[in-house]
Amino acid sequence: MMASPFPTPRPITFPPRAVTVLSANRVCKIAILGFGTVGRSVAKLLTEQAPSQLQLTHIFNRNVERKRVPWVSADVRWTEKVEDVLSSDVDVIVELAGGMDPAGGWVRRALLRGKSVVTANKQLIAAEGPELAILARRQGVRLEFGAAVAGGVPVLCALRPGLSGDRILKLAAILNGTCNYILSSMETRGLPLQSALSEAQERGFAEADPTDDVDGLDARAKLAILIRSGFQVEVHPEQILAGSILDVSCEDFSYARELGCTIRQISRAELKGETLLASVQPALVALGSPLGRAHSNQNVLVTTGKYGGETVLSGAGAGGNPTAVAVVSDLLSVAQDRYAPEPPRSPLLPLPVSAYFHSAHYVRLIVNHQAGALSSIRRLLAQHGISLRAVLHRPPQGGEAQERSYVALVLEECAASALKNVLQDLRQAEFLAKPPLVLPIV
Amino acid sequence: MMASPFPTPRPITFPPRAVTVLSANRVCKIAILGFGTVGRSVAKLLTEQAPSQLQLTHIFNRNVERKRVPWVSADVRWTEKVEDVLSSDVDVIVELAGGMDPAGGWVRRALLRGKSVVTANKQLIAAEGPELAILARRQGVRLEFGAAVAGGVPVLCALRPGLSGDRILKLAAILNGTCNYILSSMETRGLPLQSALSEAQERGFAEADPTDDVDGLDARAKLAILIRSGFQVEVHPEQILAGSILDVSCEDFSYARELGCTIRQISRAELKGETLLASVQPALVALGSPLGRAHSNQNVLVTTGKYGGETVLSGAGAGGNPTAVAVVSDLLSVAQDRYAPEPPRSPLLPLPVSAYFHSAHYVRLIVNHQAGALSSIRRLLAQHGISLRAVLHRPPQGGEAQERSYVALVLEECAASALKNVLQDLRQAEFLAKPPLVLPIV
Repeated sequence: MMASPFPTPRPITFPPRAVTVLSANRVCKIAILGFGTVGRSVAKLLTEQAPSQLQLTHIFNRNVERKRVPWVSADVRWTEKVEDVLSSDVDVIVELAGGMDPAGGWVRRALLRGKSVVTANKQLIAAEGPELAILARRQGVRLEFGAAVAGGVPVLCALRPGLSGDRILKLAAILNGTCNYILSSMETRGLPLQSALSEAQERGFAEADPTDDVDGLDARAKLAILIRSGFQVEVHPEQILAGSILDVSCEDFSYARELGCTIRQISRAELKGETLLASVQPALVALGSPLGRAHSNQNVLVTTGKYGGETVLSGAGAGGNPTAVAVVSDLLSVAQDRYAPEPPRSPLLPLPVSAYFHSAHYVRLIVNHQAGALSSIRRLLAQHGISLRAVLHRPPQGGEAQERSYVALVLEECAASALKNVLQDLRQAEFLAKPPLVLPIV
Repeated sequence: MMASPFPTPRPITFPPRAVTVLSANRVCKIAILGFGTVGRSVAKLLTEQAPSQLQLTHIFNRNVERKRVPWVSADVRWTEKVEDVLSSDVDVIVELAGGMDPAGGWVRRALLRGKSVVTANKQLIAAEGPELAILARRQGVRLEFGAAVAGGVPVLCALRPGLSGDRILKLAAILNGTCNYILSSMETRGLPLQSALSEAQERGFAEADPTDDVDGLDARAKLAILIRSGFQVEVHPEQILAGSILDVSCEDFSYARELGCTIRQISRAELKGETLLASVQPALVALGSPLGRAHSNQNVLVTTGKYGGETVLSGAGAGGNPTAVAVVSDLLSVAQDRYAPEPPRSPLLPLPVSAYFHSAHYVRLIVNHQAGALSSIRRLLAQHGISLRAVLHRPPQGGEAQERSYVALVLEECAASALKNVLQDLRQAEFLAKPPLVLPIV
């Protein structure tokens, strides 16, 4: 078994255990760290729904004055000093600042001071979740992160405890609402990728810098969290291949449709013997499948269990209110079970990670001077022992496209090495105007 | 607020609290009561998967000798005396006998003796769940019933804790695999209902006496459990209208398709002011919707939350293995949280129950001597102030059908009383060969 190539997280020194024991009828005092979209929605839910055992007492944000809203109870303390919160008598810290730093430090300090933590911070949990969970357990407090994956869709509690009795064999998911918005706009309205991205930015579905979303880094953090929960296997997000959606074109959607498919950013994982297969990349999925039907900024999880078969969850994977639902659900769980620190679990198993799933592949080429190119391609594939299931090709239509044409190949399942070698040869072929786009067919 | 018209469950007298305190590393001893399909699957999962903290020690069944299987560990004690199990040192009783009696008595006695209970018994939990939960809490043990609704689909933990932070406004579900198998066979293969039912019986998807399934009694018990969990409202299954699928014909599927719909047995509930709307009945659902896409014996739950919007879960709702997954997931949860008896929750709210959802309705008539009948129908509807959205009608095709014809009306949403009155008038009309079939359009 391969050792993880990633640095061991910094060691944690444990102070004397500082359990906050609450009496059954005391309310649970809550502080929000980070008053952005999700923070406001959490405050709104706590204000409007007012579950009697949850009381919002602190809101922390930098330059907090510009964040103040009139509809929050006058008792709530607004502060821009995190120490005000950490040294207070709050029971639970809701960390919504995001990112590794300084949020990670706040979470650690909160746990060390015997406060439970509820967070939507996928980067932090993906990178340091297991260590933070150990810290929380030793402190006799809770660390919950249902909001870190798929927003309002309760995927983590569906996996555990929901499906913990099964042996999960495979996960396939749509975990990034931004990419799904872009790709489903390309599918349904024929928009080019850049227009779909700009529209997503205008409508608030994509950040000004969308790199983490379109390059798969956001989804990969979420996939790492799902893998731990579903397979009880330890994986670092950087071990997971992440492919960008930026090279997907309208032509690819049109070819995909000819194959009865559409294109989505798919996060998937599978246990194959002693190897964990895992990747986030654009892929062809059947039009009628749960993944192919996901539109706009929906999230979907499809699990395949040895005993329970296929289970599908879908819903609103992003946005302030759905994410706040996940946060408040975690808060209720912490408030109700506060006598119940999680018992120690068996440590997660580290496994070697591969990104090569056995599947057919869609390979799209932009070919100069198409005459002769196709037979060269066929020859190359034959040399590498790869069977061709289909070739899709349309004559160029006017304009600058006349010199180039889009050719799509559907390759039968083959060894990872054969695919790698043929792609290497193709990249060097003179008739290719651009590197090939390779999408697995899920 | 209306008092429940149902008898108060028999009062429970509490003996001194008898908590079984387990040390963290001790295994959790498990007895299975009832070794049918699900019982065998649970034993198989516990044998094959062998989570180290779960140990099967007893199997109870009447005439247990004929049930023995060789693949269960030789240490397991097979018995036909339930007292052998109840007086043993098992920690958790898995009740899979089903039905109210004697299973209800066994569950009660197990809880009174300080044993946790995991059950798939929807009838018992629907009828007495809240009282049994109080008993379990007072005894410091757990009562879990994830397997009672939707088999392997983790709908209960998706609702609570998963979506507990939201305010659930509506539930719509397919909860009976037998009905879904029958109706989806009628849809996709044009089978008449009786043939589809016989086929379901042959293939083990329907009981020899399918009454509970086709009349909606099975689904209604499950819906009652979902309503408690989703709305925190108390409802007795007998308060929920249950309509049979037996009158649905092939003609109805063909008319439904013209309306872009198909027909499914739909269990649904909605909070409308101070009233709970709830029913189980065949209904028209859009072909492309999550409910319309459910095929074979799948189960589906669609929840609509005030903040989180629509969340969908689907998967294998019946069968030994999927149901066993739910049982073993509950067992793991009980074993891991055994220090944590559930804290007292606020009591469920009893609300008056109505079966009338505001929706359009499909009304199918079998009309004698069709001439003149249609104008009479239009007149009747006008008299009651009901608007007609569409009339579907095909000329009779040969044979005995010549004297009768199927006419389908699509009525716009109207007051419950108007619909009731017009149906009363229609039932008395001479041109009707049979009482009308009325299906809501969900």
